[in-house]
Parts: sequence; structure tokens; C-alpha cells
Amino acid sequence: MSDSSPERKTVTACVLIIGNEILSGRTKDANLAFLAEQLNLSGVRLMEARVIPDVPQTIIDTVNAVRGQFDYVFTTGGIGPTHDDITSECVAAAFGLPLIRNPEAVRRLQAHYPPGGLNEARLRMANTPEGAELIDNPVSIAPGFRIGNVFVLAGVPAIMRAMFESLRHSLTGGLPMQSRTVTSTLPEGAMAAELSAIQDRFAEVEIGSYPFFRMGKPGTAIVLRATDVARLALATDDVKAMMTGLGDSPVETDAE
Amino acid sequence: MSDSSPERKTVTACVLIIGNEILSGRTKDANLAFLAEQLNLSGVRLMEARVIPDVPQTIIDTVNAVRGQFDYVFTTGGIGPTHDDITSECVAAAFGLPLIRNPEAVRRLQAHYPPGGLNEARLRMANTPEGAELIDNPVSIAPGFRIGNVFVLAGVPAIMRAMFESLRHSLTGGLPMQSRTVTSTLPEGAMAAELSAIQDRFAEVEIGSYPFFRMGKPGTAIVLRATDVARLALATDDVKAMMTGLGDSPVETDAE
Repeated sequence: MSDSSPERKTVTACVLIIGNEILSGRTKDANLAFLAEQLNLSGVRLMEARVIPDVPQTIIDTVNAVRGQFDYVFTTGGIGPTHDDITSECVAAAFGLPLIRNPEAVRRLQAHYPPGGLNEARLRMANTPEGAELIDNPVSIAPGFRIGNVFVLAGVPAIMRAMFESLRHSLTGGLPMQSRTVTSTLPEGAMAAELSAIQDRFAEVEIGSYPFFRMGKPGTAIVLRATDVARLALATDDVKAMMTGLGDSPVETDAE
Repeated sequence: MSDSSPERKTVTACVLIIGNEILSGRTKDANLAFLAEQLNLSGVRLMEARVIPDVPQTIIDTVNAVRGQFDYVFTTGGIGPTHDDITSECVAAAFGLPLIRNPEAVRRLQAHYPPGGLNEARLRMANTPEGAELIDNPVSIAPGFRIGNVFVLAGVPAIMRAMFESLRHSLTGGLPMQSRTVTSTLPEGAMAAELSAIQDRFAEVEIGSYPFFRMGKPGTAIVLRATDVARLALATDDVKAMMTGLGDSPVETDAE
């Protein structure tokens, strides 16, 4: 079968969005959608995301709960210079490692700030767990870091994205998921039984049904995802034939 | 002290966003920010959110992990008519309750669909755990439900919002968090030490520091949150005085 070669194993990830501002509704998270999409392109399947508050024990417990469960963990937020930036110390505590002042991070900050600008608060941004590997930050210099399978990134979207570009090469992905989308003017309830039968025939294809309303009329987007392009094509053909059989003219669109 | 009366206890909530489409990056979640804001207005503090895939055991385990940990749990997604809509059966399984075809939900669907339209797939939308209480859906009729402290809502934002309006009256909140925001043109690293000292003096006020760039210049929004308006005002005054002392002219803005 198609899953026989070892490099086809699924590589999984979890994203931890750390910050009270997301949970209070003040800030809309802009990082999850980016990471979901980019990880997928790298052949890494995002299996879970959690939004957690700036509470030390919650961060420590959550990091420890997920780092054993997934191949990669990505955290966003809480690595700035202020009192509410506690991610680095919590990740160190989760790994049972001392928090050190990373000499290379200090060197980068020293080179960046004008004389007198690198105060004690900003120097906190050079703190990492012992043994961490720095992640470059071309936007505002203060680096992220990787320790074990946990990547610690900034919360500001522009910085987080730049950091992700810096680390992308280090990810070992499985086969990327391919995606196809078929849109119908049929409401999903009209084709649910047939769709379920197609899903039963194609267990390795993930078939999602997403209803929508456009200009007051219902419709459904069927999204098919799989690593096996040939099986994906067969399942997509079946979905289109099913819609045609129900009297509709299906349209294939980009997964966007 | 200000926490002596019993109704001042913190009422907590967790949101579970259920759906592969969020984790694949195909769909941007639009529900978390709404729920975060509305819960806060109802005096309920959102303490955690998780995005999980359409995997039965994951849904069951997650519902059971969080329903004991928080006062309220809100799920979004997975209650439509298709094979990938498995939230209702998973919530029933989490509670160890049989999944029944809810007679009142059937009645509502029968009244809504034209003759012949209510097929077996659509009837699945009337399935609830035994003993569940329906949540009205004025948009597309198929109801959500509440079982124990778990509220099961639709994933389509317009429907989710209408359901939330239907259930809002049933929530028992604590004192709502009040919020004040002070904006400065100082970068956060310049005031981090002073801010930390203010946080130390006001343990009951949650002080967050959010750096931004506007027209190429850095600045910081300091957000102060507390249920005690008087202490919040004192802490806000201290933040403004601190900024003024550092040579800046702080501006108070809405928390938006």
C-alpha cells in the first residue's frame, strides 16, 4: 500500500498561543492561520492548538503535556522585555533546565541597541534555557530559541513570521498534504449520505464538508485532503460525479 | 478586602474549536475573538481555548479534560448533517450518556424543511445526549444544546453568534473585568522596570504590555484589567505618571 516507506510517517505539531490579550478578546490572534498553512507546506500536520494565559504553572504544565505528544511544539508570545513576558523561564522550568543569559543573544542585543539602551529589562530577552539554539530575528534582533522539540517564537506577527522563515529549513516533514476543493450549490444535507459513502471507500482521504451562504443561497465546499495524489484524484472524481448525479454542476476551486 | 463577598468569585470558561479546517489553515477561526469578548462582558473569564481535529477520541478526551477544570465549556463546530460532524456523539460519549434523537429538535426540523427535505442526514442534527437542553438557532433552526456545563454550538459564525445570544441569559458570571488602556510612544523596554514595580504594588490588576509599530515608530499599549474599579484607577494613574516621568505624554484609549 501507499504507506509502506518509512519517510511517509505523519509528522505532527502543536501550537501554543501564550497571552492574556487573546483570551480577553482584546487582540485577535493572527499567528495560528499562518503557522497552520506553513507547517502544512512543510509536511508537518498541525494536530492541536491551545491558547493559554500568562500563568507560569499553566504554561509549564501545557508545554510538558504537549511536547511528549507531538513531534514539534511552537509557542508564540511572551518573550519581550516586560514583567508579563515569562515564556522563556517557563519553558526552561518545563524542561527542568536552568535559565541562562545566552552569550550570543547578549552579543546580538549589544550590537543592536545604542549605547545605554540595553537596560536590564531588555537583557531579559537574552535569557534562554541552557543548551537552547537561537532562532534569528531579522526584524527586531531579540532571538527566539529552540530547546528539544519546542520552538519559542515571538507573538508580534511580523516577528513570528520572520522567525519561522529562519527555522523552516530545520523541520523534517512527512509527505505534504495535498488538497482539492469542490464547490456545489447543493446544501450539505442533500448530499450527506452519498458523501459518507465516499468517505467510507476512501479512508485515507480526509473529506470535510463546509456549508456556506452566498448572496442568500446555500452551498457547500467539499475539501478533500490526502498525501496520496492518485487516491485524492479518484475521491475527487467521485465527489463530482455524486454532485452531477444529484443534478448540480460542481466547480473545482483552489483550497483558498 | 475587595474579594470578601461570595458573588465575587471568578467564573471561568474554556472554548473548544473543533474542526480540521482550522488546523489545516483553510479556514480562519472567527469564533474565538467573539466568545472571548462576549464572555468577558458576561463576567465569565475565558481561561483557555483549544483547537482540535475531527477525531472522536481527541474530542472525547478533551471535553472530559476541560469540563472538570472550568465552570463553563463552549464547543464550536461539528454539529451539521455530514459524516465529519461528530461533536454531538462525542460529547454524549464524554458524559457516558446515550445519544438520543431529541423529539423537540425533530419537531423544529420538521417544521422548517419542505416535505421530503428532512432526510436521514439532516435528522442527525436532532441527535443530542439524553437530558440535554436545546439552544435555539434562529438562523438555520437545527439547535445547539447544553449538557452539564458544556454548551455545544455551531461552527458557522453567524449561527454560533445567534446561539450565544440565545444562551447568554443562562450564564452566571462573576464581576466583569474592567479594562483601561494607556498608549505611549516609549518602546516597552524603556519602561519595563518601572512597569514591573507597578505590577508588584497592584497584584489584583492584570497589567499587559503590548509593543507596536506605527508609521515606522515603536510604541507600547499598556492594558490594565481588574474587577475592582478603584484599584484599577490607581494603577492606571501610576502607569501614566511613570510614562510622564520618562518624558512621554501618555494617551488613554479604549481597550479596542
